[in-house]
Amino acid sequence: MTVVLKTFQLSTKPYCDIIDITHQVQTAVSESKIKDGIVNVSVAGSTGAISTTEYEPGLVKHDIENLLENIIPYNKNYAHHKTWHDHNGAGHLRSFLVKTSQTFPFQNRQVILGTWQQIIFLELDEKTRSRTIYVQIIGE
Amino acid sequence: MTVVLKTFQLSTKPYCDIIDITHQVQTAVSESKIKDGIVNVSVAGSTGAISTTEYEPGLVKHDIENLLENIIPYNKNYAHHKTWHDHNGAGHLRSFLVKTSQTFPFQNRQVILGTWQQIIFLELDEKTRSRTIYVQIIGE
Amino acid sequence: MTVVLKTFQLSTKPYCDIIDITHQVQTAVSESKIKDGIVNVSVAGSTGAISTTEYEPGLVKHDIENLLENIIPYNKNYAHHKTWHDHNGAGHLRSFLVKTSQTFPFQNRQVILGTWQQIIFLELDEKTRSRTIYVQIIGE
Repeated sequence: MTVVLKTFQLSTKPYCDIIDITHQVQTAVSESKIKDGIVNVSVAGSTGAISTTEYEPGLVKHDIENLLENIIPYNKNYAHHKTWHDHNGAGHLRSFLVKTSQTFPFQNRQVILGTWQQIIFLELDEKTRSRTIYVQIIGE
Repeated sequence: MTVVLKTFQLSTKPYCDIIDITHQVQTAVSESKIKDGIVNVSVAGSTGAISTTEYEPGLVKHDIENLLENIIPYNKNYAHHKTWHDHNGAGHLRSFLVKTSQTFPFQNRQVILGTWQQIIFLELDEKTRSRTIYVQIIGE
Repeated sequence: MTVVLKTFQLSTKPYCDIIDITHQVQTAVSESKIKDGIVNVSVAGSTGAISTTEYEPGLVKHDIENLLENIIPYNKNYAHHKTWHDHNGAGHLRSFLVKTSQTFPFQNRQVILGTWQQIIFLELDEKTRSRTIYVQIIGE
Protein backbone atom coordinates (compact mmCIF):
# COMPACT_ATOMS: atom_id res chain seq x y z
CA MET A 1 0.00 0.00 0.00
CA THR A 2 1.37 3.38 -1.02
CA VAL A 3 0.44 7.06 -0.91
CA VAL A 4 1.46 9.32 -3.79
CA LEU A 5 0.71 13.06 -3.94
CA LYS A 6 0.74 14.73 -7.35
CA THR A 7 -0.09 18.37 -8.08
CA PHE A 8 -0.70 20.40 -11.21
CA GLN A 9 -1.36 24.06 -11.96
CA LEU A 10 -4.28 25.75 -13.70
CA SER A 11 -4.51 29.31 -15.01
CA THR A 12 -8.14 30.21 -14.64
CA LYS A 13 -10.56 32.92 -15.71
CA PRO A 14 -13.01 34.46 -13.24
CA TYR A 15 -16.79 33.93 -12.92
CA CYS A 16 -17.45 30.23 -13.44
CA ASP A 17 -14.60 29.12 -15.68
CA ILE A 18 -15.02 25.32 -15.91
CA ILE A 19 -11.93 23.27 -16.82
CA ASP A 20 -11.77 19.57 -17.73
CA ILE A 21 -9.04 18.05 -15.52
CA THR A 22 -9.74 14.38 -16.25
CA HIS A 23 -6.53 13.96 -18.25
CA GLN A 24 -4.32 15.41 -15.49
CA VAL A 25 -5.97 13.23 -12.83
CA GLN A 26 -5.69 10.08 -15.00
CA THR A 27 -2.02 10.90 -15.78
CA ALA A 28 -1.28 11.32 -12.05
CA VAL A 29 -2.83 7.91 -11.33
CA SER A 30 -0.92 6.27 -14.21
CA GLU A 31 2.39 7.79 -13.09
CA SER A 32 1.85 6.78 -9.44
CA LYS A 33 2.42 3.09 -10.34
CA ILE A 34 -0.42 2.22 -7.95
CA LYS A 35 -2.72 -0.36 -9.53
CA ASP A 36 -5.94 -0.20 -7.49
CA GLY A 37 -7.22 2.35 -5.00
CA ILE A 38 -8.87 5.72 -4.63
CA VAL A 39 -7.86 9.18 -5.80
CA ASN A 40 -8.84 12.34 -3.93
CA VAL A 41 -8.93 15.47 -6.10
CA SER A 42 -9.01 18.82 -4.26
CA VAL A 43 -8.32 22.52 -4.50
CA ALA A 44 -6.86 24.35 -1.50
CA GLY A 45 -9.05 27.43 -1.30
CA SER A 46 -12.59 28.60 -0.62
CA THR A 47 -13.61 29.98 -4.04
CA GLY A 48 -13.00 26.94 -6.26
CA ALA A 49 -14.80 23.60 -6.56
CA ILE A 50 -14.43 20.06 -7.91
CA SER A 51 -17.23 17.95 -9.44
CA THR A 52 -18.01 15.97 -12.61
CA THR A 53 -20.15 16.56 -15.69
CA GLU A 54 -20.32 15.71 -19.37
CA TYR A 55 -17.85 18.24 -20.73
CA GLU A 56 -19.76 19.69 -23.66
CA PRO A 57 -20.33 23.42 -24.36
CA GLY A 58 -24.05 23.48 -23.55
CA LEU A 59 -23.50 22.32 -20.00
CA VAL A 60 -20.14 23.93 -19.22
CA LYS A 61 -20.64 27.30 -20.94
CA HIS A 62 -24.34 27.82 -20.22
CA ASP A 63 -26.35 25.42 -18.07
CA ILE A 64 -24.07 25.06 -15.03
CA GLU A 65 -23.41 28.81 -14.97
CA ASN A 66 -27.14 29.55 -15.22
CA LEU A 67 -27.93 27.09 -12.43
CA LEU A 68 -25.34 28.62 -10.08
CA GLU A 69 -26.34 32.17 -11.07
CA ASN A 70 -29.99 31.37 -10.30
CA ILE A 71 -29.31 30.15 -6.77
CA ILE A 72 -26.18 32.21 -5.96
CA PRO A 73 -25.99 35.35 -8.16
CA TYR A 74 -22.70 37.21 -8.43
CA ASN A 75 -24.32 40.65 -8.39
CA LYS A 76 -25.80 40.68 -4.88
CA ASN A 77 -24.86 42.34 -1.61
CA TYR A 78 -23.46 39.54 0.52
CA ALA A 79 -22.55 40.08 4.19
CA HIS A 80 -19.11 38.72 3.28
CA HIS A 81 -18.43 41.91 1.30
CA LYS A 82 -18.70 44.02 4.44
CA THR A 83 -16.11 41.91 6.26
CA TRP A 84 -13.27 42.39 3.80
CA HIS A 85 -14.63 45.01 1.37
CA ASP A 86 -14.18 42.59 -1.50
CA HIS A 87 -16.90 41.23 -3.79
CA ASN A 88 -16.48 37.48 -4.06
CA GLY A 89 -19.27 36.37 -1.70
CA ALA A 90 -20.94 34.40 -4.48
CA GLY A 91 -17.67 32.58 -5.20
CA HIS A 92 -17.42 31.52 -1.56
CA LEU A 93 -21.03 30.34 -1.41
CA ARG A 94 -20.76 28.37 -4.66
CA SER A 95 -17.57 26.72 -3.39
CA PHE A 96 -19.26 25.85 -0.08
CA LEU A 97 -22.20 24.24 -1.91
CA VAL A 98 -20.38 22.35 -4.69
CA LYS A 99 -17.41 21.59 -2.42
CA THR A 100 -13.67 21.68 -2.93
CA SER A 101 -12.92 17.96 -3.28
CA GLN A 102 -14.22 14.66 -4.66
CA THR A 103 -12.90 11.10 -4.38
CA PHE A 104 -12.95 8.49 -7.17
CA PRO A 105 -12.08 4.78 -7.38
CA PHE A 106 -9.52 3.42 -9.85
CA GLN A 107 -8.76 -0.11 -11.02
CA ASN A 108 -5.85 -1.35 -13.16
CA ARG A 109 -4.56 2.26 -13.19
CA GLN A 110 -7.81 3.56 -14.77
CA VAL A 111 -10.01 6.09 -12.96
CA ILE A 112 -13.56 4.69 -12.98
CA LEU A 113 -15.79 7.24 -14.73
CA GLY A 114 -18.67 7.09 -17.19
CA THR A 115 -18.03 7.45 -20.92
CA TRP A 116 -19.48 10.97 -20.90
CA GLN A 117 -18.30 11.93 -17.42
CA GLN A 118 -15.35 14.27 -16.91
CA ILE A 119 -13.76 15.61 -13.72
CA ILE A 120 -13.99 19.40 -13.63
CA PHE A 121 -12.50 22.30 -11.71
CA LEU A 122 -14.71 25.37 -11.29
CA GLU A 123 -13.13 28.80 -10.85
CA LEU A 124 -15.78 30.70 -8.90
CA ASP A 125 -13.75 33.74 -7.86
CA GLU A 126 -14.01 37.19 -9.45
CA LYS A 127 -10.34 37.31 -10.46
CA THR A 128 -7.95 35.46 -12.75
CA ARG A 129 -6.19 32.91 -10.54
CA SER A 130 -3.35 30.43 -10.62
CA ARG A 131 -4.63 27.26 -8.91
CA THR A 132 -2.83 24.23 -7.55
CA ILE A 133 -4.89 21.04 -7.80
CA TYR A 134 -3.91 18.25 -5.37
CA VAL A 135 -4.27 14.63 -6.45
CA GLN A 136 -3.75 12.27 -3.50
CA ILE A 137 -3.57 8.63 -4.61
CA ILE A 138 -3.83 5.71 -2.15
CA GLY A 139 -3.79 2.05 -3.01
CA GLU A 140 -1.65 -0.96 -3.78
CA MET B 1 -3.74 -2.81 4.18
CA THR B 2 -5.90 -4.04 1.34
CA VAL B 3 -8.04 -2.67 -1.48
CA VAL B 4 -11.22 -4.51 -2.48
CA LEU B 5 -13.54 -3.42 -5.29
CA LYS B 6 -17.11 -4.68 -5.23
CA THR B 7 -19.88 -3.78 -7.68
CA PHE B 8 -23.60 -4.31 -7.82
CA GLN B 9 -26.34 -3.56 -10.35
CA LEU B 10 -29.50 -1.47 -10.04
CA SER B 11 -32.49 -1.34 -12.38
CA THR B 12 -33.78 2.20 -12.08
CA LYS B 13 -36.78 4.24 -13.09
CA PRO B 14 -36.38 7.71 -14.63
CA TYR B 15 -36.99 11.15 -13.07
CA CYS B 16 -35.63 11.03 -9.54
CA ASP B 17 -35.95 7.38 -8.58
CA ILE B 18 -34.26 7.15 -5.16
CA ILE B 19 -32.98 3.73 -4.07
CA ASP B 20 -31.68 2.71 -0.63
CA ILE B 21 -28.29 1.01 -1.23
CA THR B 22 -27.14 0.83 2.40
CA HIS B 23 -27.54 -2.94 2.56
CA GLN B 24 -25.46 -3.55 -0.60
CA VAL B 25 -22.69 -1.22 0.63
CA GLN B 26 -22.66 -2.82 4.11
CA THR B 27 -22.60 -6.32 2.56
CA ALA B 28 -19.64 -5.33 0.34
CA VAL B 29 -17.74 -4.08 3.40
CA SER B 30 -18.58 -7.25 5.38
CA GLU B 31 -17.49 -9.54 2.51
CA SER B 32 -14.22 -7.62 1.97
CA LYS B 33 -12.81 -9.00 5.26
CA ILE B 34 -11.32 -5.54 5.90
CA LYS B 35 -11.91 -4.51 9.51
CA ASP B 36 -11.33 -0.73 9.55
CA GLY B 37 -11.09 1.80 6.76
CA ILE B 38 -13.09 3.88 4.32
CA VAL B 39 -15.54 2.94 1.61
CA ASN B 40 -16.02 5.05 -1.53
CA VAL B 41 -19.43 4.61 -3.19
CA SER B 42 -19.76 5.90 -6.76
CA VAL B 43 -21.71 5.67 -9.98
CA ALA B 44 -19.87 5.88 -13.30
CA GLY B 45 -21.99 8.34 -15.24
CA SER B 46 -23.14 11.95 -15.34
CA THR B 47 -26.88 11.58 -14.69
CA GLY B 48 -26.85 9.69 -11.37
CA ALA B 49 -25.87 10.72 -7.85
CA ILE B 50 -24.95 9.35 -4.42
CA SER B 51 -25.89 10.93 -1.06
CA THR B 52 -27.59 10.01 2.22
CA THR B 53 -30.98 10.68 3.77
CA GLU B 54 -33.50 9.15 6.13
CA TYR B 55 -35.17 6.68 3.78
CA GLU B 56 -38.85 7.34 4.47
CA PRO B 57 -41.56 8.04 1.85
CA GLY B 58 -42.08 11.72 2.66
CA LEU B 59 -38.45 12.60 1.93
CA VAL B 60 -37.69 10.13 -0.87
CA LYS B 61 -40.99 10.28 -2.77
CA HIS B 62 -41.80 13.97 -2.30
CA ASP B 63 -39.43 16.38 -0.56
CA ILE B 64 -36.13 15.59 -2.33
CA GLU B 65 -37.88 15.51 -5.73
CA ASN B 66 -39.60 18.84 -4.99
CA LEU B 67 -36.31 20.43 -3.88
CA LEU B 68 -34.49 19.31 -7.02
CA GLU B 69 -37.45 20.23 -9.25
CA ASN B 70 -37.52 23.75 -7.72
CA ILE B 71 -33.88 24.50 -8.45
CA ILE B 72 -33.37 22.30 -11.56
CA PRO B 73 -36.73 21.61 -13.30
CA TYR B 74 -36.92 18.79 -15.83
CA ASN B 75 -39.21 20.71 -18.19
CA LYS B 76 -36.88 23.54 -19.24
CA ASN B 77 -34.89 24.31 -22.39
CA TYR B 78 -31.28 23.61 -21.41
CA ALA B 79 -28.38 24.43 -23.74
CA HIS B 80 -27.35 20.78 -23.35
CA HIS B 81 -30.41 19.75 -25.39
CA LYS B 82 -29.12 21.62 -28.45
CA THR B 83 -25.78 19.80 -28.32
CA TRP B 84 -27.15 16.27 -28.60
CA HIS B 85 -30.87 16.81 -29.28
CA ASP B 86 -31.73 14.87 -26.16
CA HIS B 87 -33.65 16.12 -23.11
CA ASN B 88 -31.73 15.14 -20.00
CA GLY B 89 -30.10 18.49 -19.18
CA ALA B 90 -31.78 18.55 -15.76
CA GLY B 91 -30.39 15.07 -15.02
CA HIS B 92 -26.87 16.26 -15.79
CA LEU B 93 -27.22 19.39 -13.65
CA ARG B 94 -28.68 17.49 -10.69
CA SER B 95 -25.83 14.97 -10.91
CA PHE B 96 -23.26 17.78 -11.07
CA LEU B 97 -24.74 19.40 -7.94
CA VAL B 98 -25.40 16.35 -5.75
CA LYS B 99 -22.29 14.56 -7.09
CA THR B 100 -21.63 11.01 -8.18
CA SER B 101 -19.70 9.70 -5.16
CA GLN B 102 -19.45 9.84 -1.38
CA THR B 103 -16.94 8.31 1.04
CA PHE B 104 -17.80 6.82 4.45
CA PRO B 105 -15.74 5.45 7.36
CA PHE B 106 -16.20 1.94 8.73
CA GLN B 107 -15.02 0.29 11.94
CA ASN B 108 -15.21 -3.39 12.95
CA ARG B 109 -16.72 -4.06 9.51
CA GLN B 110 -19.65 -1.66 10.19
CA VAL B 111 -20.23 1.40 8.01
CA ILE B 112 -20.58 4.38 10.36
CA LEU B 113 -23.98 5.96 9.72
CA GLY B 114 -26.70 7.47 11.86
CA THR B 115 -29.67 5.36 12.97
CA TRP B 116 -31.94 7.13 10.51
CA GLN B 117 -29.36 7.68 7.78
CA GLN B 118 -29.31 5.55 4.64
CA ILE B 119 -27.00 5.67 1.61
CA ILE B 120 -29.01 6.42 -1.53
CA PHE B 121 -28.56 6.29 -5.28
CA LEU B 122 -30.53 8.85 -7.30
CA GLU B 123 -31.52 8.08 -10.90
CA LEU B 124 -31.76 11.54 -12.45
CA ASP B 125 -31.94 10.58 -16.13
CA GLU B 126 -35.11 10.59 -18.24
CA LYS B 127 -34.87 6.89 -19.12
CA THR B 128 -34.98 3.53 -17.37
CA ARG B 129 -31.36 2.54 -16.79
CA SER B 130 -29.26 -0.35 -15.60
CA ARG B 131 -26.61 1.10 -13.27
CA THR B 132 -23.38 -0.32 -11.91
CA ILE B 133 -22.51 0.99 -8.44
CA TYR B 134 -18.81 0.79 -7.49
CA VAL B 135 -17.86 0.17 -3.86
CA GLN B 136 -14.12 0.66 -3.35
CA ILE B 137 -13.02 -0.44 0.13
CA ILE B 138 -9.60 0.45 1.59
CA GLY B 139 -8.33 -0.42 5.02
CA GLU B 140 -6.71 -3.06 7.17
CA MET C 1 -0.04 1.89 5.95
CA THR C 2 -2.31 2.48 8.91
CA VAL C 3 -5.91 3.38 9.72
CA VAL C 4 -6.67 5.55 12.75
CA LEU C 5 -10.18 6.57 13.81
CA LYS C 6 -10.55 9.62 16.03
CA THR C 7 -13.79 11.18 17.25
CA PHE C 8 -14.75 14.39 18.99
CA GLN C 9 -17.97 15.86 20.37
CA LEU C 10 -19.79 19.08 19.53
CA SER C 11 -22.62 20.77 21.43
CA THR C 12 -24.64 22.51 18.76
CA LYS C 13 -27.42 25.04 18.48
CA PRO C 14 -30.38 24.47 16.11
CA TYR C 15 -31.13 26.14 12.75
CA CYS C 16 -27.86 26.42 10.87
CA ASP C 17 -25.26 26.64 13.63
CA ILE C 18 -21.91 26.57 11.77
CA ILE C 19 -18.85 25.42 13.73
CA ASP C 20 -15.20 25.61 12.68
CA ILE C 21 -13.76 22.11 13.24
CA THR C 22 -10.42 22.60 11.42
CA HIS C 23 -8.43 22.52 14.65
CA GLN C 24 -9.98 19.24 15.83
CA VAL C 25 -9.40 17.58 12.44
CA GLN C 26 -5.79 18.83 12.26
CA THR C 27 -5.15 17.65 15.84
CA ALA C 28 -6.53 14.19 15.00
CA VAL C 29 -4.19 13.95 12.00
CA SER C 30 -1.20 15.13 14.07
CA GLU C 31 -1.94 12.64 16.86
CA SER C 32 -2.39 9.74 14.42
CA LYS C 33 1.37 9.70 13.69
CA ILE C 34 0.49 9.09 10.02
CA LYS C 35 2.63 11.30 7.78
CA ASP C 36 0.84 11.30 4.40
CA GLY C 37 -2.65 10.23 3.42
CA ILE C 38 -6.28 11.24 3.39
CA VAL C 39 -8.69 12.15 6.16
CA ASN C 40 -12.43 11.52 5.91
CA VAL C 41 -14.54 13.80 8.14
CA SER C 42 -18.15 12.74 8.70
CA VAL C 43 -21.17 13.07 10.93
CA ALA C 44 -23.36 10.03 11.59
CA GLY C 45 -26.84 11.43 11.08
CA SER C 46 -29.17 12.88 8.48
CA THR C 47 -29.59 16.47 9.74
CA GLY C 48 -25.96 17.61 9.88
CA ALA C 49 -23.41 18.38 7.15
CA ILE C 50 -19.68 18.84 6.51
CA SER C 51 -18.14 21.33 4.06
CA THR C 52 -15.56 24.13 3.97
CA THR C 53 -15.71 27.93 3.87
CA GLU C 54 -13.78 30.98 4.96
CA TYR C 55 -14.84 31.13 8.60
CA GLU C 56 -15.75 34.80 8.97
CA PRO C 57 -19.02 36.19 10.42
CA GLY C 58 -20.46 37.50 7.13
CA LEU C 59 -20.43 34.06 5.53
CA VAL C 60 -21.12 31.86 8.56
CA LYS C 61 -23.70 34.02 10.35
CA HIS C 62 -25.52 35.42 7.31
CA ASP C 63 -24.70 34.36 3.75
CA ILE C 64 -24.69 30.56 4.10
CA GLU C 65 -27.87 30.67 6.21
CA ASN C 66 -29.57 32.95 3.67
CA LEU C 67 -28.54 30.71 0.78
CA LEU C 68 -29.90 27.58 2.46
CA GLU C 69 -33.04 29.40 3.63
CA ASN C 70 -33.70 30.56 0.06
CA ILE C 71 -33.57 27.10 -1.45
CA ILE C 72 -34.73 25.03 1.56
CA PRO C 73 -36.76 27.19 3.99
CA TYR C 74 -37.35 25.91 7.53
CA ASN C 75 -40.92 27.19 7.69
CA LYS C 76 -42.53 25.04 5.02
CA ASN C 77 -44.85 22.02 5.07
CA TYR C 78 -42.62 19.11 4.05
CA ALA C 79 -44.02 15.64 3.40
CA HIS C 80 -41.47 14.39 5.94
CA HIS C 81 -43.47 16.12 8.70
CA LYS C 82 -46.49 13.92 8.02
CA THR C 83 -44.43 10.73 8.40
CA TRP C 84 -43.18 11.37 11.93
CA HIS C 85 -45.14 14.46 13.00
CA ASP C 86 -41.89 16.33 13.55
CA HIS C 87 -40.72 19.51 11.83
CA ASN C 88 -37.16 18.99 10.66
CA GLY C 89 -37.78 18.34 6.97
CA ALA C 90 -35.60 21.31 5.99
CA GLY C 91 -32.76 19.94 8.12
CA HIS C 92 -32.93 16.60 6.29
CA LEU C 93 -33.01 18.24 2.87
CA ARG C 94 -30.09 20.56 3.66
CA SER C 95 -28.07 17.59 4.93
CA PHE C 96 -28.90 15.60 1.77
CA LEU C 97 -27.74 18.48 -0.45
CA VAL C 98 -24.58 19.60 1.39
CA LYS C 99 -23.77 16.01 2.43
CA THR C 100 -22.54 14.48 5.65
CA SER C 101 -18.87 13.88 4.80
CA GLN C 102 -15.88 15.30 2.97
CA THR C 103 -12.38 13.87 2.38
CA PHE C 104 -9.14 15.90 2.44
CA PRO C 105 -5.49 15.12 1.63
CA PHE C 106 -2.68 15.65 4.14
CA GLN C 107 1.09 15.77 3.73
CA ASN C 108 3.76 15.87 6.44
CA ARG C 109 0.94 15.68 9.02
CA GLN C 110 -0.67 18.90 7.67
CA VAL C 111 -4.19 18.88 6.24
CA ILE C 112 -4.00 20.59 2.84
CA LEU C 113 -6.37 23.57 2.93
CA GLY C 114 -6.30 27.14 1.63
CA THR C 115 -5.18 29.98 3.90
CA TRP C 116 -8.76 31.19 4.24
CA GLN C 117 -10.44 27.79 4.10
CA GLN C 118 -11.80 26.11 7.22
CA ILE C 119 -13.58 22.76 7.68
CA ILE C 120 -17.07 23.32 9.07
CA PHE C 121 -19.85 21.30 10.66
CA LEU C 122 -23.39 22.54 10.05
CA GLU C 123 -26.12 21.77 12.58
CA LEU C 124 -29.26 21.79 10.43
CA ASP C 125 -31.73 20.24 12.88
CA GLU C 126 -34.36 22.15 14.83
CA LYS C 127 -33.04 21.08 18.24
CA THR C 128 -29.91 21.48 20.34
CA ARG C 129 -27.82 18.38 19.68
CA SER C 130 -24.70 16.62 20.91
CA ARG C 131 -22.85 15.46 17.80
CA THR C 132 -20.04 12.96 17.35
CA ILE C 133 -17.72 13.82 14.46
CA TYR C 134 -15.75 10.90 13.00
CA VAL C 135 -12.25 11.51 11.64
CA GLN C 136 -10.98 8.44 9.75
CA ILE C 137 -7.30 8.81 8.81
CA ILE C 138 -5.59 6.50 6.30
CA GLY C 139 -2.01 6.71 5.12
CA GLU C 140 1.56 5.82 5.87
